[in-house]
Amino acid sequence: MKTYTEYLTFHTRRRREYLHITPQVESALRQSGVKEGMALVSAMHITAGVYVNDHESGLIHDIDQWLEQLAPAQPNYQHHQTGEDNADAHLKSMLVHHEVIVPITAGRLDLGTWQRIFYAEFDGQRDKRVIVKIMGE
Amino acid sequence: MKTYTEYLTFHTRRRREYLHITPQVESALRQSGVKEGMALVSAMHITAGVYVNDHESGLIHDIDQWLEQLAPAQPNYQHHQTGEDNADAHLKSMLVHHEVIVPITAGRLDLGTWQRIFYAEFDGQRDKRVIVKIMGE
Amino acid sequence: MKTYTEYLTFHTRRRREYLHITPQVESALRQSGVKEGMALVSAMHITAGVYVNDHESGLIHDIDQWLEQLAPAQPNYQHHQTGEDNADAHLKSMLVHHEVIVPITAGRLDLGTWQRIFYAEFDGQRDKRVIVKIMGE
Repeated sequence: MKTYTEYLTFHTRRRREYLHITPQVESALRQSGVKEGMALVSAMHITAGVYVNDHESGLIHDIDQWLEQLAPAQPNYQHHQTGEDNADAHLKSMLVHHEVIVPITAGRLDLGTWQRIFYAEFDGQRDKRVIVKIMGE
Repeated sequence: MKTYTEYLTFHTRRRREYLHITPQVESALRQSGVKEGMALVSAMHITAGVYVNDHESGLIHDIDQWLEQLAPAQPNYQHHQTGEDNADAHLKSMLVHHEVIVPITAGRLDLGTWQRIFYAEFDGQRDKRVIVKIMGE
Repeated sequence: MKTYTEYLTFHTRRRREYLHITPQVESALRQSGVKEGMALVSAMHITAGVYVNDHESGLIHDIDQWLEQLAPAQPNYQHHQTGEDNADAHLKSMLVHHEVIVPITAGRLDLGTWQRIFYAEFDGQRDKRVIVKIMGE
């Protein structure tokens, strides 16, 4: 059994941003040498997410608007009594989820034709990390 | 360490449909010979999901209505400028999530009494695939 | 390859409650002896969830209010025709998701600075179980 760990760092210019990270996960997979197994891709923050969906800018815009509608930025969260102003980012992170597991078959990420891995930043403009943990043989 | 991979194909009659697939995952587990480990069950599409919940038709109706309320089918998504009409299916897929991991103990799916695995189709009426990846010993 | 399984039991006083369970998962990890791998933490019920986010009481209050807004307790669910009254708990469980996978590196849960594991109870006041399944070497 092999395991391999890589930490990716992202620093977005905007507060909310959606980054396509399939290439970085593929690169980690090549480094790992794993042929059959699973790759865990997990945000190490509570105001960010990782998801699998379409690499299409219109849809990414729709996702952003939809998340803002379901978990709006507004002042009246109790979390803000701690001095924070990012409660909406926590809720958006919970909606999107902070991690995915991608199957590995014959040395490749076994994704469907249109499936791509994204890092979803909801409180950016600073260094944030994603762990890629690969396990298999 | 053992790994085992199986691809399931579904073709629903309706656009949105919820299929109980625990028996297919159990069958893959038997084929794998794995006694202790994990089974990843993951939709290979960006307009479908996989979840674990109750096998009760009333609840499945409630889930469908609730998803339609939180991520409604409507024309004004930016994704539709590409010619697509299924942005709501992408959003529903993100809400439900496209995958689950089920623990395997003593050669069986280690689910609670009422937990069943479902494939959630949000843009069907064509062949769509789910990967079952089993890893363990 | 090693695997290790532990079942945690929770019995909340209120119907909805959010329990910090990182210490219990760390304890299971120590028992497992696994140094590199993954820990699956999964509710064994269809009216509960497991998530990773902040250990801050104001935010936990916000999460609870937000879930009640997106998946409200109300009488008119079709599921209630079975005699149940907890359809909202099923929907909240789907939103939060019933499981997380946590990476294990150098014998520790490889979480970010503020990431903590929570059990989210949506229909409590009785014994409910969470499985911790650890796999690695």
